[in-house]
Amino acid sequence: MRYKCTVAYDGFDYKGFQIQGKKKTIELALNEAISLMTKQRIKIVGSGRTDAQVHAKGQVFHFDADFIMNPDAMKTAMNWRLAKDIRIIEIEPVDETFHARFSAIKKEYHYLVSTVMPSPFESRYKAYYESLDIERIKDALNHFIGTHDFRGFCSATVHKEKDCTREIIKADLVIEEDCLRFIFIGTGFLKYQVRRMMGLILDIGSGKDEVTTIDKVLDSKDPKISHKVAPGYGLYLEHVYY
Amino acid sequence: MRYKCTVAYDGFDYKGFQIQGKKKTIELALNEAISLMTKQRIKIVGSGRTDAQVHAKGQVFHFDADFIMNPDAMKTAMNWRLAKDIRIIEIEPVDETFHARFSAIKKEYHYLVSTVMPSPFESRYKAYYESLDIERIKDALNHFIGTHDFRGFCSATVHKEKDCTREIIKADLVIEEDCLRFIFIGTGFLKYQVRRMMGLILDIGSGKDEVTTIDKVLDSKDPKISHKVAPGYGLYLEHVYY
Repeated sequence: MRYKCTVAYDGFDYKGFQIQGKKKTIELALNEAISLMTKQRIKIVGSGRTDAQVHAKGQVFHFDADFIMNPDAMKTAMNWRLAKDIRIIEIEPVDETFHARFSAIKKEYHYLVSTVMPSPFESRYKAYYESLDIERIKDALNHFIGTHDFRGFCSATVHKEKDCTREIIKADLVIEEDCLRFIFIGTGFLKYQVRRMMGLILDIGSGKDEVTTIDKVLDSKDPKISHKVAPGYGLYLEHVYY
Repeated sequence: MRYKCTVAYDGFDYKGFQIQGKKKTIELALNEAISLMTKQRIKIVGSGRTDAQVHAKGQVFHFDADFIMNPDAMKTAMNWRLAKDIRIIEIEPVDETFHARFSAIKKEYHYLVSTVMPSPFESRYKAYYESLDIERIKDALNHFIGTHDFRGFCSATVHKEKDCTREIIKADLVIEEDCLRFIFIGTGFLKYQVRRMMGLILDIGSGKDEVTTIDKVLDSKDPKISHKVAPGYGLYLEHVYY
């Protein structure tokens, strides 16, 4: 039996999604909780990684187990074993053609920027930038929409043979109370891509860089072109589309 | 010069307000930040302690320093040095008759109880209890109003000679979305008092105990009478009145 699970987490205290030995990661916590529940050694398959400190409201993973269990009972049992900063939102049985990573067709990320100093109760959940120029930011966002080779915006550790062409379908800004919510929907995102895009967008918004830099970085196809990486704790994997 | 400071903190990762050697406490963090800023060895005086994991929206402390500085500049400098889960809200110069602890006339605590399973982004900030009977809770709250000897609701470590008589002026319940907000205003609170009161109130609300137990515990004047202590992370020191 294959099960598809949707999970939310406060990633601030974690070293990221992907398992790294005994380090505190989301994947390790999920593997341990599910293995305890099922009394089998289970390894989950995530839709993709999230970096250290990055949050998720709708990360998806699947796992295979040789038993049939009521999904709601399974969800309750898993949440009982998980730390409170990880919550299973939904579990559903799926057929074996479903794959959390390969079946995903789109992903939606949000990035939250507080425009006032965050209270101690918000500082884990929002980046903080003051005096941003909204019109410059909207102009910058438009430059990302479409299909581009995003090598210039990804991690320098991504293998040089890898195809870095991705399509950004949506790059929107929603103005909330004392907060800017950036919404990105794309066919896939490379390691560090949203955070490096946000680093440049926020530099453009605060007048430290120009909108023209976006095309220069895209054209360069060089991830070593230095620009800022926005903090992980502002970023949310909001939804994975199948 | 004496300065009065109002501070908010997410206490979840702290061992409490009061300094305990090198352990991670709010008082140690404040002493270090202010000493760095002033290049003097400063020891703050708080309005009182908060327990491990307990939050504050309006804790107050004072300190003395032999310099005059613009309060807003001082606030900025202190917040720059503090971890983001502690934020100075306000600083004002006061005369030397002001004392954060002895001048306090009332304190206001809030206790937050989520009535649905908290999301990973709320689980540090609310206790969680389902199926509570609101009418029983309101009845229980009324039993606490007035002047009582609260020894039965305080820590067993409080010295037996200490006067444990306190007045509770307000004990209210505000029903918010998926959340109960308990509001307590009193002339002062003993160690563990609000959390032990809340432990019994929530047991009464969930049918595990009876309202009559409140008077029994008050009459007993015995802190060793066993009843639950509600989790620290649901509690907020909201305001200190002078």
